[in-house]
Amino acid sequence: MQKRIKLDVGRYMAGLSVDNVIFGFHDNQLKVLLLECLNLRDWMLPGGFIQKDESLDEAASSVLLNRTGLKNVYLQQFHSFGDPGRSGEAATKGFMKSMHLNIEENKWFMHRFITIGYYALVEFEKVVPVPDQMSASCAWHDIDDLPPLIFDHRDIILNALTSMRHHLNYQPIGYNLLPKEFTMKNLQSVYETILNRKLDRSNFNRKMLASGILDKKEKLFTGGAHKAPYLYSFNKKNYFRVLKDGFNNEF
Amino acid sequence: MQKRIKLDVGRYMAGLSVDNVIFGFHDNQLKVLLLECLNLRDWMLPGGFIQKDESLDEAASSVLLNRTGLKNVYLQQFHSFGDPGRSGEAATKGFMKSMHLNIEENKWFMHRFITIGYYALVEFEKVVPVPDQMSASCAWHDIDDLPPLIFDHRDIILNALTSMRHHLNYQPIGYNLLPKEFTMKNLQSVYETILNRKLDRSNFNRKMLASGILDKKEKLFTGGAHKAPYLYSFNKKNYFRVLKDGFNNEF
Repeated sequence: MQKRIKLDVGRYMAGLSVDNVIFGFHDNQLKVLLLECLNLRDWMLPGGFIQKDESLDEAASSVLLNRTGLKNVYLQQFHSFGDPGRSGEAATKGFMKSMHLNIEENKWFMHRFITIGYYALVEFEKVVPVPDQMSASCAWHDIDDLPPLIFDHRDIILNALTSMRHHLNYQPIGYNLLPKEFTMKNLQSVYETILNRKLDRSNFNRKMLASGILDKKEKLFTGGAHKAPYLYSFNKKNYFRVLKDGFNNEF
Repeated sequence: MQKRIKLDVGRYMAGLSVDNVIFGFHDNQLKVLLLECLNLRDWMLPGGFIQKDESLDEAASSVLLNRTGLKNVYLQQFHSFGDPGRSGEAATKGFMKSMHLNIEENKWFMHRFITIGYYALVEFEKVVPVPDQMSASCAWHDIDDLPPLIFDHRDIILNALTSMRHHLNYQPIGYNLLPKEFTMKNLQSVYETILNRKLDRSNFNRKMLASGILDKKEKLFTGGAHKAPYLYSFNKKNYFRVLKDGFNNEF
C-alpha cells in the first residue's frame, strides 16, 4: 500500500523552504546527511517549509531535530537560493508523481520556491537518522562521493562547503564535533578534513592557543605516560565570544 | 498634490523582498546610502520586490542600478532576514498610511516579508543618488551616525558591516572603491576604515603583495620625486581569482 502524504500547506509560507546541509565527521572523513527520495534514484537535502509564525532559524532547527534527534547544535544560515529555474517544472512534476501527489490538487508545490540554506556541524555518533514522509531512507554520504541529487541540491552542498571553509578563517569550529576532551592533533584533524589539506602543526597550535578557546587539562601522573599528549577542552565562554567576534584577523 | 503610488503587485513574488546595504568610501569615512521615507522621520534601505521571473541577484542588481546609476559592481548576498515580527503590523500600517495607501485595498503589503540582504561597495564619487517612489530623498549617511531607521533596517546594516568585515579575512576589497591607480597607503586606508582600527603597515604590505592581486607601476623619473610612493593597480585576473578562492588562510 502506498504511503499517503499529507501536508497542511495552509500553515506554511508559500514559495519558501529551508534546506539543511548537515555535516558530520567520521573516520577522518567529512559526511553529509541525505534523504533518499521515494521511488526515485535521486537523493535530497533534509528540508522543510516555514510556518507562518516561526522564524527562519526555528524552521531550520526543527528540520535538524526531526532528522537527527539533535538540538542546540551549531546551525548557520549561509545563503539563499532563488534562481527561477532552480527546481524546474519537469523535476518538480517528477518529484510529485513519485510521491503520488496529484498536480492539480497540489498546485502549492508547483510554486517557484526560494530556499534558505543552513549548514550544521554535528557529532556523527550522536545522530539517529530519521527519514521524513517524502523519503525512503536517511543516511550519511561521503562528501567526495555524493549520489545523484534532486534540483540544485548538489550546488547547495558545494556552496555550504565553501562557506564553511571561509568561516573557518574567522570562526572556531569543533564544538559539537569532538568529544569533551581531545588532543591538539584531533582538533587539527577536524580542520584538515574540512579544508581538505594538510596544515602546519606549529602554526595551528599557536593560533589555537593564542585565541583562548582551549583549556589545557592537567596531566595525571601515570608512570610511563610522560609522552602522552596533552588533552584540551573548549573554554565555552571564550569559544562563543570568538564565534561571535571572530579570530583576530591577520592584518 | 499627493504623489500617487502605483505598484503592479501581481508581477512580484508575495512576501519577499531584497534590501541593499550600499557602502561608499569618502573622506576616509564609511558611508551608507539611505532613502528618506515619505512623510515619516524614518529612513530605509534601498530595496525592492522580486519579479516572478527574475533571480535574487537580478532583483538586487536592479535596485542598485535604479538608486545609484551603477552596474557591474561588487554586490554580495550576505543574509536573509525573516523573523515574524521584523516589520511589525503597526509599523507596516504607519508606513502605508504615510504613503496614502489604503490598507484594505493593499493587503499584499501586510504580508509577512522575508528580505534577502545584499551589500555593495561602490565608488562614492560615481553615485548619483535617486529616490524611489516611496521616498522623499536619497542620501549618504555616516555609518557611525545613522538616522532613525524603519523596521529592522538598522540590524540589517549592522549585520552587513559585520559580514563585510568577516569577508575581508578571505576576500580582497578595493576594486570599484579606489581609482585605477593608488598607493599602498590608500588601500590600507580602505581596510582601516572598514575594520575601524589601525593595521600594521608591514604585515599589510606583505599580505597584499603575496596575494598577487596588485601590479606595481614603474616610477617615472621626475627629478626630486624619488620619495614618491609606488603606485599600484589591481591585477584583475588575480583579484577575481582570489575573490573566488579566498586568500590563503593562515593555518
